[in-house]
Parts: sequence; C-alpha cells; structure tokens
Amino acid sequence: MVNIAVMGYGTVGSGVIEVLQTNKERIDQRAGDEIHVKYILDLRDFPGDPIQEKIVHDFQVIAEDPSIQIVVEVMGGIEPAYTFVKKCLMAGKSVVTSNKALVAKHGAELLSIAREKNINFLFEASVGGGIPIIRPLNSSMTADEIEEITGILNGTTNYMLSKMFYEGADYEEVLKEAQEKGYAERNPEADVEGYDACRKIAILSSLISGQQVDFEDIYTEGITQITKEDMMYAKAMGMTIKLLACSRRDEDHIHAIVAPYLLSSSHPLYSVNDVFNAIFVHGNVLGDAMFYGSGAGKLPTASAVVSDIVDEVKHLNRNIMTMWDQDKVELLPISDTSKRFFVRIKGEPQAMKAHLESKFGPIEIVQVEPLEGEFGFLTEIMTEGHFEQCQKEFPSILHRIRVEG
Amino acid sequence: MVNIAVMGYGTVGSGVIEVLQTNKERIDQRAGDEIHVKYILDLRDFPGDPIQEKIVHDFQVIAEDPSIQIVVEVMGGIEPAYTFVKKCLMAGKSVVTSNKALVAKHGAELLSIAREKNINFLFEASVGGGIPIIRPLNSSMTADEIEEITGILNGTTNYMLSKMFYEGADYEEVLKEAQEKGYAERNPEADVEGYDACRKIAILSSLISGQQVDFEDIYTEGITQITKEDMMYAKAMGMTIKLLACSRRDEDHIHAIVAPYLLSSSHPLYSVNDVFNAIFVHGNVLGDAMFYGSGAGKLPTASAVVSDIVDEVKHLNRNIMTMWDQDKVELLPISDTSKRFFVRIKGEPQAMKAHLESKFGPIEIVQVEPLEGEFGFLTEIMTEGHFEQCQKEFPSILHRIRVEG
Repeated sequence: MVNIAVMGYGTVGSGVIEVLQTNKERIDQRAGDEIHVKYILDLRDFPGDPIQEKIVHDFQVIAEDPSIQIVVEVMGGIEPAYTFVKKCLMAGKSVVTSNKALVAKHGAELLSIAREKNINFLFEASVGGGIPIIRPLNSSMTADEIEEITGILNGTTNYMLSKMFYEGADYEEVLKEAQEKGYAERNPEADVEGYDACRKIAILSSLISGQQVDFEDIYTEGITQITKEDMMYAKAMGMTIKLLACSRRDEDHIHAIVAPYLLSSSHPLYSVNDVFNAIFVHGNVLGDAMFYGSGAGKLPTASAVVSDIVDEVKHLNRNIMTMWDQDKVELLPISDTSKRFFVRIKGEPQAMKAHLESKFGPIEIVQVEPLEGEFGFLTEIMTEGHFEQCQKEFPSILHRIRVEG
Repeated sequence: MVNIAVMGYGTVGSGVIEVLQTNKERIDQRAGDEIHVKYILDLRDFPGDPIQEKIVHDFQVIAEDPSIQIVVEVMGGIEPAYTFVKKCLMAGKSVVTSNKALVAKHGAELLSIAREKNINFLFEASVGGGIPIIRPLNSSMTADEIEEITGILNGTTNYMLSKMFYEGADYEEVLKEAQEKGYAERNPEADVEGYDACRKIAILSSLISGQQVDFEDIYTEGITQITKEDMMYAKAMGMTIKLLACSRRDEDHIHAIVAPYLLSSSHPLYSVNDVFNAIFVHGNVLGDAMFYGSGAGKLPTASAVVSDIVDEVKHLNRNIMTMWDQDKVELLPISDTSKRFFVRIKGEPQAMKAHLESKFGPIEIVQVEPLEGEFGFLTEIMTEGHFEQCQKEFPSILHRIRVEG
C-alpha cells in the first residue's frame, strides 16, 4: 500500500478523490500497488462528506508523516504551494502537481531536488488539462529534436473565438456568455490577456529546450482587440483566428510567443473548437503530430493528476528523467522573428496599393463586402521589426494580426 | 554502451539507422547511454554503403552474441520474424518491432516471455506509424477505463477517400493515382479491404481490454464499394466518409469493427485528411482525446521505433508493464451492435417513405440533385441484425453505409 496526501480539496482535488474511487481497481492494477489517500489538506471542513475524516488543516502533519510517499499539490498559486512542495521533496516524498504557475516559475529547481533525492516531481496536468503531453514529450518523442510546439492552450479564449467565428458575435457579447456559463472568470484577465497560455508555453518551451524559459520573457498578446470585423476577413480568406502559444527552435535560440493568429483551414489546429485544447508538435524526424482533448475541467484534469500518481507509485525511489535545468535559454527578440502579417487599413486599395507595396513589399489585397472605407492585405514573410517600422508610416492602419504558417 | 542489432534493412530499417545517426547526441542523452548498432541482418549486401560492415546474413550471429541487449525487428511478416523475435526474447534480449501482423497474432505470448525474463517487447510503431499511441495508452491513460478507440489507421485509404471527397473523383481513378504516387501497392488488397486497419485495431483492442482480441474475429469491410455518388450524399448531409477502425467496450464485451463510416463535421476525425492517421480515445474520466500524425513513412515510423529503443535502454532488465494476456476476449456479435445507417435506394421518396418507415422506423430523407431515380435516408439507431432483416425486404436498396456517433 502506498500512502498519499492531497493538498487542496477544491475542484481538481475533489476530482482526484473521485477518479481514485471510480476507477480504483484499474488504477491499483496499473500502479502495481494499492493507492491509499491518508490525508487531505484544506483550511475548510467538509462535515457529512466521507472524506472529512482525512481532512487535516496543518501541513506539518503531512510533512512529518514518514508513511506518506506521494503528495499531490492541487491548491494553485505560488505560495504556500512552493514552500510545501519543496519541503515534501526535501523530505523524500514524490510530488504531483497541476499548478502551472508553480511549474513555470520553479519547475527546474523542484525537478533538480527530485533528481537528487531519486524521487519524482511530475506535472502532466499543468498543461493541456487531461491531454497527455508532458509524458509523451518526455518518454515518447525521445528520438526527435522537437523544432516547434504550437498550442491552443486556453479553453476560455478558444470558446470565445469559436463563438465569434461561427456566430459572428462580438467580443464583449461572447465574454459575457462565457462568464455566464462559468467558462470565464468574473475577472477574465488571466485568460483573455494570454497570461494562462503564456505559463503553459513557458513550461513546454523549457521541456523542448531542456533549459529554463522564463514566462516573463515571452511576448504575450491577448484576444481583447479581436473584433467581429477581423473574423469577417478571416472567413473571407478561408481562415480562422485562434489564440496560439508557439515555441520554435532556431538553432540555439527559442522564439516563443502568445498571440492571436490567422490560421488556414489546412492547419490541424483549425478545427479545434470550443473549450478543447490541442498541441501541435513538429519533430525533425517524426514530422507533424497533434494531441487533442479537454484542456480543463475537473475530471480530465484529475485524470492527468492520477496518471502521474500511478507513474510515481511505479517509480518510488527511481527518478524519471526530465530534461529541464536551471540555466536560462536566450529567447530570440520578437523584432528579429519573421512571419506574415494581415493588416486592416482605412482607405481604397486601388489608390494605396503602390504606396503600401513600396514599404511592405508585395501584398495581397482582401476585401469584405459589408465593410466600407477599409480593406485588408496580407504581407509576405517579414521580420516583426521591419513590419513595425513600415506600420508607423501608415497611421490609417486599424489592426494587424499575425499569420501562422 | 548498449549494443543493438537491426533485423531488416528495408525502408523502416534504413530509417532507424538514419534517425540514430541524425539525432545521435539527443538520443544517447535521453537513453542515458550510448546506443551502438553492432549488426544489421539482411539477405542482401550493400556495397558502398557505410553500414555494409555491420551486415550479417545469419540470424545466429545475433542470437548467439551475448553483447547484444536489444534487437530491432523491422522485417515484416509473420515468419521468420516470429521465430527470430521469440528466440531473442528467450535469450534475454529486449525486442522492438514495427510489425503489426506479428504483434496482432503473437503479441500476448511475446509480452509474457518478456515479462518472465524481466526484459521488454515494445511495438509503438506497429500502430499509427509515428503517432505516440501505444505508450500513452500504457503509461499515460492509466487513470481511465478506456471505453472507446476509433481510428483512421490506414493512410492509403484515407488519402483515397480524401481525394474522392474533395475532388469528386471515383474509386478506380484515385486508386490508380495512389498507386502512381507510391501510396498504394500494386496489389492494394491489404489497404483497401481494411486488413491493415484490422490488425491495428486488434492490437489496440487487446491493449484496452488487457486480453487477446483476434483480428480474424473482427468484422472488416473495406472501401472498394464506396462511390462518388456516396460522397455526394455525404457532402449533402455535411458529412464525409472515412474508413474507421473502432473498438468499444460494452461491460465485459468488446465491439470491434473496420468499415467505412459517415462522419459529421463536428467529429474530431472529420478533418483528418490525406495520408495522415489519427486515433480518437474516450476515457471514462478523461473524456475525449485524439492523437494525430504521420501514420506511415520511413522517418516517422523509424522515430517511433527509436523511441522504443530508448525506452528499452532505460529499462534494461526491468519490465515495463503492458497489460495484454493470452485469454481471449469475447467480441460482441456484429448483429447485436447498434448504430445509425444511411441507405441509398431506387425510387421516389414520397411513394416509399411510409413503407420504409413501417419497417425501419422513423427515417430522414436525403436527396442529391443530380442523382435521379434514387434517394437516400438515415435510420435512427438500430441493431445490425434488425437492419439486415429490414434490408432484405427492399431489393431496390443500392448501398448502405454506417453512421458514426
């Protein structure tokens, strides 16, 4: 029997208990041992709930019980999660977490403690909810140099953009609906400004580079500026707009970015709709692969947490190799990175095309019937720095959106 | 240093050598040891090729060399592959294979020998080419009861059906084109009759049930009867036609089938086109997930083989748990399984609807403008057995296609 403790009895924590109960037989069989939840750490009491007898309010009870071999951290936030997790690892207890903020900030350090102690620190649920992505990157795609990861990593914004695309709804309208349905928080900033996706792509970038990528260094642009007019242009071009989190290797550099992108219908991420997440991976020998599933939600996230518990039971006192050390990797300055841009501008295309092409180079004009007095154009591939310089010369530019691929 | 032998220097075998060379540094780092190819078994010689010095023609050289710890079988076919692999395992050498026929037929036995010898028998490349699916099922989705796996597991037929859908081409036409491009064999039977997909879904079915599913027991229908008229109806209904390989758990039974299915545009597999493969998985707590990528091809397949080699180097003398024993699981008779059907029939809908509904129950009529003297209809969910009985009463039925979901 392996004793575990669960820290936090919120949505994910209660999901973990539910999954462990629902699939107990199969899970114990897969783990090769019986998994027993001895403690649940929460400030609250849950009178009437059968788990009440396991509730403890003091972290020390867990830290000081040598019979606890695995601790599950599903409290969220940096503190006290960081202090607790570090203490558990130092005490020789393996840790599973779903906490993307913690992993993005302290992952490298916590992994190094786990390595030293010959135990494990696993975090499958921190990216992509229930989608298996961390373990496949670590243990399946071991024959490849991963050259690119591009993900739809935030379900809230993907739900909103899907609504805007399919129903022609405006941003404010879909935000309100997402809040009513419980998909968006009252304060939606973490989702709509891209901060959530940013932490997740920081974790993935660290894993593919084997070094620390700080989320603060990643250029991050949310979806708050995306309008229904933008979507009309996207449709006219046979494209859609998605909030993408990308990480590309360019020799020793990494280019990481979170931003809304125009995506053509032939891209595997094009048809990832609603609250679903997907992660596109390009390996130098594997080619293209994609992982798709529920990026959030109580049970899918709990499923990922429990799969980590099973892996830790199978590897008690044996470290599973995860390459992510504390040396910082240098991110390519955004101005040096290249892509195509879509631009909306006031005016008439006939009158302006020559002037625009004298600055931007060859452009492709896009017009949408109901939108008068403006038009759109696509540039060829150019650097962000050069684009910005050109953009300055045209104050009538309304909006620009990056183009993927 | 870990010495390995590669049996078979065909497409996959030469891909394995190429991948091991191209990504040597990363692969050795991931494996935690240097991987050294000592022998390549092939009947041919390859004068001028730097691997010529490693070529051996006699299997015994490999079997009797105690320094060989891992053997890669990429010859294909049941014999001599089965005899060779079994001998290697009995001699305490871990084996990696990409051979779906071998795994479908002898997987359970070979796994049990590996377990007994505390070594490994891995076969990631046998299903879905480069797509990580076997290892995720085994090591990632350990918290779930997998209730369904539905895959597009054959690239050749998916290429053909995509062409028929997008270009309105006829079966014979696209088959010829696929043969010219090298996607289809001169004798295309294994692909177009569904035999290849059948072996792959047999492997996946065995893995999700933990018991032996014989491929001979799986109802298998190919795509040779699919016409451009069928695709016209599919389009009119906002659907497409895909060759699906499905396996569903129904309490203690498994329902497995390979057949062309109508698929609605909201299904994640709808937009999997060309030679790509994808595997949709439904877990009882995870919900829906999908794995997408290159289902065939030299380097993607070799990438999967090499990831198995890496895993075996990391687990020399330590068996990785794979649940698949030799007890046969009972497949639900096809006549007892339920689904919707689409039917094309000669005649006029007005005149025939009442009679059809008196047998099939409520139906939904579908008409396609250019097709005169016939129409289509969708039934509600009914058993295959009941459908077949009803079908007998209408000799003017032209074709029936199953409907997914």
